[in-house]
Amino acid sequence: MKKLFSTLCLVSCISSTVHAQEFSPEQIQQVAQVREAAINSDLSWQILESLTTEIGPRLPGTENDKKAVEWAQAQFKALGFDQVWIEPATFPHWRRYHESASIITPSEQPLHLTALGNSVSTPKSGIQADVVFFETLDELIASPEGSLKGKIAFINYRMNRHIDGNGYGPAVKARNSGAVEAAKKGAIAYMMRSVSTSHHRFAHTGGSHYKTGVTKIPATAVANPDADQLARLFKNGHKVQVKLNIQTEDLGEGTSYNVIGQFNGTQYPEQYVLIGGHLDSWDLGTGALDDGAGVALTMAAAKHISDVKRPKRSVRVVLFAAEELGLWGAKAYFKRHEKTLDNIVAAAESDFGADVVYGFESNVSADALPVVREIAKQLAPLNVKYIRKNTARGGPDLIPLKNTTSAPIFALHQDGTDYFDYHHTADDTLDKVDPKKLQQNTAAYAVFTMMAADAKTKISGK
Amino acid sequence: MKKLFSTLCLVSCISSTVHAQEFSPEQIQQVAQVREAAINSDLSWQILESLTTEIGPRLPGTENDKKAVEWAQAQFKALGFDQVWIEPATFPHWRRYHESASIITPSEQPLHLTALGNSVSTPKSGIQADVVFFETLDELIASPEGSLKGKIAFINYRMNRHIDGNGYGPAVKARNSGAVEAAKKGAIAYMMRSVSTSHHRFAHTGGSHYKTGVTKIPATAVANPDADQLARLFKNGHKVQVKLNIQTEDLGEGTSYNVIGQFNGTQYPEQYVLIGGHLDSWDLGTGALDDGAGVALTMAAAKHISDVKRPKRSVRVVLFAAEELGLWGAKAYFKRHEKTLDNIVAAAESDFGADVVYGFESNVSADALPVVREIAKQLAPLNVKYIRKNTARGGPDLIPLKNTTSAPIFALHQDGTDYFDYHHTADDTLDKVDPKKLQQNTAAYAVFTMMAADAKTKISGK
Ligand SMILES: [Zn+2]
Ligand SMILES: [Zn+2]
Repeated sequence: MKKLFSTLCLVSCISSTVHAQEFSPEQIQQVAQVREAAINSDLSWQILESLTTEIGPRLPGTENDKKAVEWAQAQFKALGFDQVWIEPATFPHWRRYHESASIITPSEQPLHLTALGNSVSTPKSGIQADVVFFETLDELIASPEGSLKGKIAFINYRMNRHIDGNGYGPAVKARNSGAVEAAKKGAIAYMMRSVSTSHHRFAHTGGSHYKTGVTKIPATAVANPDADQLARLFKNGHKVQVKLNIQTEDLGEGTSYNVIGQFNGTQYPEQYVLIGGHLDSWDLGTGALDDGAGVALTMAAAKHISDVKRPKRSVRVVLFAAEELGLWGAKAYFKRHEKTLDNIVAAAESDFGADVVYGFESNVSADALPVVREIAKQLAPLNVKYIRKNTARGGPDLIPLKNTTSAPIFALHQDGTDYFDYHHTADDTLDKVDPKKLQQNTAAYAVFTMMAADAKTKISGK
Repeated sequence: MKKLFSTLCLVSCISSTVHAQEFSPEQIQQVAQVREAAINSDLSWQILESLTTEIGPRLPGTENDKKAVEWAQAQFKALGFDQVWIEPATFPHWRRYHESASIITPSEQPLHLTALGNSVSTPKSGIQADVVFFETLDELIASPEGSLKGKIAFINYRMNRHIDGNGYGPAVKARNSGAVEAAKKGAIAYMMRSVSTSHHRFAHTGGSHYKTGVTKIPATAVANPDADQLARLFKNGHKVQVKLNIQTEDLGEGTSYNVIGQFNGTQYPEQYVLIGGHLDSWDLGTGALDDGAGVALTMAAAKHISDVKRPKRSVRVVLFAAEELGLWGAKAYFKRHEKTLDNIVAAAESDFGADVVYGFESNVSADALPVVREIAKQLAPLNVKYIRKNTARGGPDLIPLKNTTSAPIFALHQDGTDYFDYHHTADDTLDKVDPKKLQQNTAAYAVFTMMAADAKTKISGK
């Protein structure tokens, strides 16, 4: 009956009715207080500044990664979290030592390029070979057998810019499997246009893969202006020769740690809202947008809540390890906690930079929607729209959760229009984060988290 | 009487009067034809694309510099210039081989940095030392004797953004003499914030100098986000240690060539309008904005004029050599032609990127002002305003001309607001040039050059 009434009634009527049920006026007042505190606080900025400045890049397995794990525990403790602990995660430990490249013919000029994650090295002295140009991965796949023998394959696929980053998926295919497909045709190295919307000379790194039985060849991405340069040389009919030196190392299995901080719930402490980001970053930049911002703003959001109250359920901030190398921290977390995933009443990861949150979306059972609508109402003052589709997919570290359970997943959609100008490049540094936008993100996470943790109804997944 | 009448009369009356005197209706019609052709042509873009793509960086003395000299002669000939020739210029030949740097404490992270032109090398194994922070060059100069012994000095002076680039002068002081002042206090290396308005991780190179009797120490500039990072570390009270490896070489005296193309005048061929840019560039980028654009648009402007007619006087395009290392081509040119500088009826260099020309300014004798006003009238349709101050300074390669004579100098002022985002960095590449804006520049140069060459009155300097 309650549900029928809700769907028939007008918005204002629903709100006030559910309001009375899910949240007391005092609770709503507390939410407003937290929202106000978060939007005016520089706490998330301070945390982000500390992480990106005093530690910097955090490639899993490096000394800086270890420092980041120490740093995160110390931060959680300093912020007064009730519980702080770590949980191990293993991952394939890979390192970049050197990368350099030049166009040799028709004239010598440096090529801004980076090894893709997992790439093997060239011989110590590098390699020099003619380049074969393709517009797309499919074009390369369609090339004749053996046609790339002794050559360097280059794919110039151009990523589209979009608010939701929908250009990334199509572009990333060439990063995932380009080196394999090139090697199948006999190529001795692989270059691709960066999976990036930037028009600056920063090459974009990111995970890449080999396939058993196919020769592992060095896999690289060139900065977009350099990809343009190569494309122009081909257009003008030049034979293009490139020299390439990549030195990396596969160090076998490494171990890092998910770092977890929790404010305990007062009524159902075993139930919890899971928010967080990933603590690791690629080695090129300082991981400010990816994903220092997610780390900082979820830590700060939880702290702002605790300044006002401990909600009914726990607020757990999980800083995942080794996301960039393949969600290794997330896999370990959800494996370790597989028996108690029902305790997760809401899960959201911030891992899409630090531009404004423009939309709020759930992925929950129908009887949880009244709570969701109440949360949406309290997000509205932050210019966050309620997206009613109820098909939220959450951040990458929630993929293992979605794969194993029907968990209640939430998305606080960020504007990703410019995200891929910086993502996975040396240019992902603190100055790219707008302090005002970071505050808005923090406030949105604080409101969502507090309400999901403090609602009368336990939110459950579909 | 003519002059008195002009100054008393209203603008429209001046214009029509002078019009009748300086340019026939047919000439004005020809100017319009050239303007129209230039604004609709992609010739300057084609030239710029060829130079920056097929040759790329053009550091004086390199193989690419030689190729550029060949390229320029071939281009001039292909464009149908009546005369094409080269004139030698010597310069101090310097090369950059390697540069790398990291922050070591409080945590290791790469530092994006570049050697300043003329910098000496570090030892092969690099140097590692504590960094001492200064906000300004004056602050460093005021530091106690011996206070930098064994240290690396760092100046964080921040360049201002301005349409006329007026932030460059104050900022460049630390590039010119920072290493000398640091060495005087005992420093073993010098780092400065880039003379740049960029917020990307590109370090800005450029000329630097040593002083006899003062130890030559490696001189470098760090990218602005890296300078911010250093500044934050100092602000937070950290002891900052940096590792630095710079490998360069002083190769003694080198020789390059000014490349000159001329369309001969029909009536006074010995008199000429001098336009041009510099053919060399720094080695980091492809010298698209600095100064491929100036080269391309002045070559194209002359060609567009010649498509319509040969003016009374010659149009000479001078592509100066080795500007970046100290105006060596310009010094050689004006020295070589010192007896005939009176033949220059107007001189303008384009060396400030490729953003729109917003203002036109002369530096001429009073009796040449009627011609100038006529030119300004024909520039107005290109949204170029007439700046009446008559104090134009022209481009850097005209400095030796101004120093030796009262030459008639012109400035086609470009919007330089964003110029220092790219100038002297690896990011100075073709994609930073807007083809529409390049056309507007080309048209402005074509109009100015044609009219100065075809006026009844010979323009002379003050
Ligand atoms: Zn991420
Ligand atoms: Zn220049």
